[in-house]
Amino acid sequence: MAKEKKAPKPKAQTPKGFRDYFGTEVTERAEMLAQIAGVYHRYGFDALESSAVETVEALGKFLPDVDRPNEGVFAWQEDEDGDKGDWLALRYDLTAPLARVYAQHRNDLPLPYRRYAMGPVWRNEKPGPGRYRQFYQCDADTVGSGSVAADAEICAMLADTLEVVGIPRGDYIVRVNNRKVLNGVLESMGLNDDAQRDAVLRTIDKFDKVGEGGVRELLGKGRLDASGAYIDGVGLNDAQAEPVIAFLTSKGETAAQTIENLKAAVGDSAIGAEGVAELEQIADLLAAGGYGPDRIVIDPSVVRGLGYYTGPVFEAELTFEILDEKGRKRQFGSVAGGGRYDDLVKRFTGQPVPATGVSIGVDRLLAALREKGRIGSQSTGPVVVTVMDRDRMGDYQAMVAELRSAGIRAEVYLGNPKNFGNQLKYADKRNSPVAVIEGGDEKANGVVQIKDLILGAKIAESASLEEWQDRPNQFEVPRDQLVSKVREILESYS
Amino acid sequence: MAKEKKAPKPKAQTPKGFRDYFGTEVTERAEMLAQIAGVYHRYGFDALESSAVETVEALGKFLPDVDRPNEGVFAWQEDEDGDKGDWLALRYDLTAPLARVYAQHRNDLPLPYRRYAMGPVWRNEKPGPGRYRQFYQCDADTVGSGSVAADAEICAMLADTLEVVGIPRGDYIVRVNNRKVLNGVLESMGLNDDAQRDAVLRTIDKFDKVGEGGVRELLGKGRLDASGAYIDGVGLNDAQAEPVIAFLTSKGETAAQTIENLKAAVGDSAIGAEGVAELEQIADLLAAGGYGPDRIVIDPSVVRGLGYYTGPVFEAELTFEILDEKGRKRQFGSVAGGGRYDDLVKRFTGQPVPATGVSIGVDRLLAALREKGRIGSQSTGPVVVTVMDRDRMGDYQAMVAELRSAGIRAEVYLGNPKNFGNQLKYADKRNSPVAVIEGGDEKANGVVQIKDLILGAKIAESASLEEWQDRPNQFEVPRDQLVSKVREILESYS
Repeated sequence: MAKEKKAPKPKAQTPKGFRDYFGTEVTERAEMLAQIAGVYHRYGFDALESSAVETVEALGKFLPDVDRPNEGVFAWQEDEDGDKGDWLALRYDLTAPLARVYAQHRNDLPLPYRRYAMGPVWRNEKPGPGRYRQFYQCDADTVGSGSVAADAEICAMLADTLEVVGIPRGDYIVRVNNRKVLNGVLESMGLNDDAQRDAVLRTIDKFDKVGEGGVRELLGKGRLDASGAYIDGVGLNDAQAEPVIAFLTSKGETAAQTIENLKAAVGDSAIGAEGVAELEQIADLLAAGGYGPDRIVIDPSVVRGLGYYTGPVFEAELTFEILDEKGRKRQFGSVAGGGRYDDLVKRFTGQPVPATGVSIGVDRLLAALREKGRIGSQSTGPVVVTVMDRDRMGDYQAMVAELRSAGIRAEVYLGNPKNFGNQLKYADKRNSPVAVIEGGDEKANGVVQIKDLILGAKIAESASLEEWQDRPNQFEVPRDQLVSKVREILESYS
Repeated sequence: MAKEKKAPKPKAQTPKGFRDYFGTEVTERAEMLAQIAGVYHRYGFDALESSAVETVEALGKFLPDVDRPNEGVFAWQEDEDGDKGDWLALRYDLTAPLARVYAQHRNDLPLPYRRYAMGPVWRNEKPGPGRYRQFYQCDADTVGSGSVAADAEICAMLADTLEVVGIPRGDYIVRVNNRKVLNGVLESMGLNDDAQRDAVLRTIDKFDKVGEGGVRELLGKGRLDASGAYIDGVGLNDAQAEPVIAFLTSKGETAAQTIENLKAAVGDSAIGAEGVAELEQIADLLAAGGYGPDRIVIDPSVVRGLGYYTGPVFEAELTFEILDEKGRKRQFGSVAGGGRYDDLVKRFTGQPVPATGVSIGVDRLLAALREKGRIGSQSTGPVVVTVMDRDRMGDYQAMVAELRSAGIRAEVYLGNPKNFGNQLKYADKRNSPVAVIEGGDEKANGVVQIKDLILGAKIAESASLEEWQDRPNQFEVPRDQLVSKVREILESYS
């Protein structure tokens, strides 16, 4: 007899590079987003939430990973009554959508328009350890202001925000650079080929990792990296590479010294001189605001991968060390970045609209706080009212209703109540502080049993029972004292 | 001479059926989500955030709009190094992903698993007025409990939640039905063809709109609807249609009466009798918990479109009237729905895992509160420090820094400061309560000018100036009294 062929079962798996977040992972992120929104709001920024889906046309092509499939975005074509329509895509950041929003609604928005936005973004990239294709960003941008005061303010706000979410001063640094300075250096090198310029920018971005020697190799013939792979170089000769090195090593003891070094590095490039002047103004404004080099520094090695930046660029780095997956010490690294992008709105309107902003990688920041043990403790579960008699579910529901009305998190056990041990195991798995028991005898006598599970766990763990044996961990109280006794136990641990 | 052809400018537009949310639209939603999460948490539910993207295989096909392109979801195929990979899609609800999550992580999760989730979902549907292709849901589900106590609890929690977010008792009703009762009716009719059953279910769903007569027509030959379009009927004869009508009109004065009528309507169908018994238990549990028919009722006309429900189904409806786009009165309608879906996890594991839950349509609920004038007032903008002298930006930044440190929302005007009138227009557009002015004279004298813009607006609006003329709306105060004077003005309006 032929067996009937069944449809195969679907695989219960997130798509590659995606993941699920449980319990405190979700609530701690929500809390951090609210904290950040609080700072942004105090600085005068208004909330904006644009849709996750944009036309590919509106998003444009600004991702650094040009080699990736679909150029880094998740995209599909609209299907309208059988006809093919627009190409749509998931946003890859919150900045490109802001440019579209501003262009679309500019007649109704104030000028300058200061907005903040938070939410997931998606990148169609090769996933790796700790590298996901959906992650949260939390951005603030000022559209319509060409003043470097706007850039300086964003840097100051970024420093304030990091401290508000729990990164103390000294554990982070905001580094500021200017694309115009970079462009000035490239100009003074006579590099006009876009591909070669991009290759040089990518190399500069690796300065932190590979150091001066590594950059020299990468600008020249190439380099054997730590994994043994050979990385092709840009192909410049030593003389050509020299201005890049001068630029990268221009960071002085003070902002003023760095500025002086940069003036030399850009030579007689007009755009370079403009960039240095802007950095000087930013440094002055920050100094006036009391943001010293313990929080914000001018640092020529900052590049930022995105192609749309046109002026000041900045990033925030956490400076404490963590152990990587192989147990080696390394700096935690970048958690936020941004810069000025004066041409993004112009794409739509034809008119120049200056803009600047910052994006905080909320998931990276949460990982940092977890790494430091500042968040991530297990949350307390609900009080569990056990079910001794499944016909009296109404009685048990009344108990949890009373507890909840008193503001106490509580639930009835809703699994199969036959095995009482399973009910206590469940309470344990939920990290419940208290279990409530009302069997037939208790019901007849008008009492309930209240089990202190935190104390119970301590007794179970304790080698010497003596120290606990005077303290009971189960109490019989009149039914009408249920709420007050539970509250008493909860308060004894708070 | 041939002109150089430029690339066309991208259109600054959201894709069809998507929209942007500004300011209080965003913050009011965030506040509502936090309120709902608070209730869910108090009931013992834990947070879960799954990814927006799932494999099409994991999502399954449960959307009611089977005629729509891509069967209602936004989907695309993975492109892995040139090879075609998995089909991925944006989640269309939060329930299908929960089934996948539970199946994937079941060894680590408590049983029963109670979770809440909130976030956008996407439907590839034809957009219409007020109907968007991205909207928020806020769900709570209990996985692993077959007890109708779980269903009853969800209904009670739904009622509590609506009151917490600002819908008073009397303005909403939670209606409960059971798919098994429906199936019993269909069984007693001898309807076994799936397509015909689905057609009957869809017709029952229209009972609220078209009434008994309309349902009779739609079950039979068809019906000319209000727009003049002819809707094909299911093709049943009058005798066949009768059990459906008996079922739909079975709602009695009391739950007990409705239950009696339903017992008659399901005839000798075993599944129907089981469904009626479950409804009876739910009614008893809710009555024991004090949830009377002013909040929750048994109502046979509830169907719920999604195909995965297997037992109790429920929905919450707002009962007050609003004016529709044509100025006609109508009930606001459904804002939440849910039910039991015992087979969703089984799709993955092969083992039955009972589950039940509710989904609140947060955007509809927000629209309802706005309609009633309970939210949606304009938010107060920041204090605006104007720029009289662009070389003293550091001074102005210092002022906002002081104000922010005192917890006052404040910003420096970052537009072109040349035209002072534009600065005040900007403050007006931002709904700013106060503007601060420090020109050269003020600086020299160590004072600042503080403009009360709320009073200013009142004076401008007032027909009789006399009533205001005694009260100045601009104050000169010493620079070091900036914060205290601004606070005094803000407090006079709070």
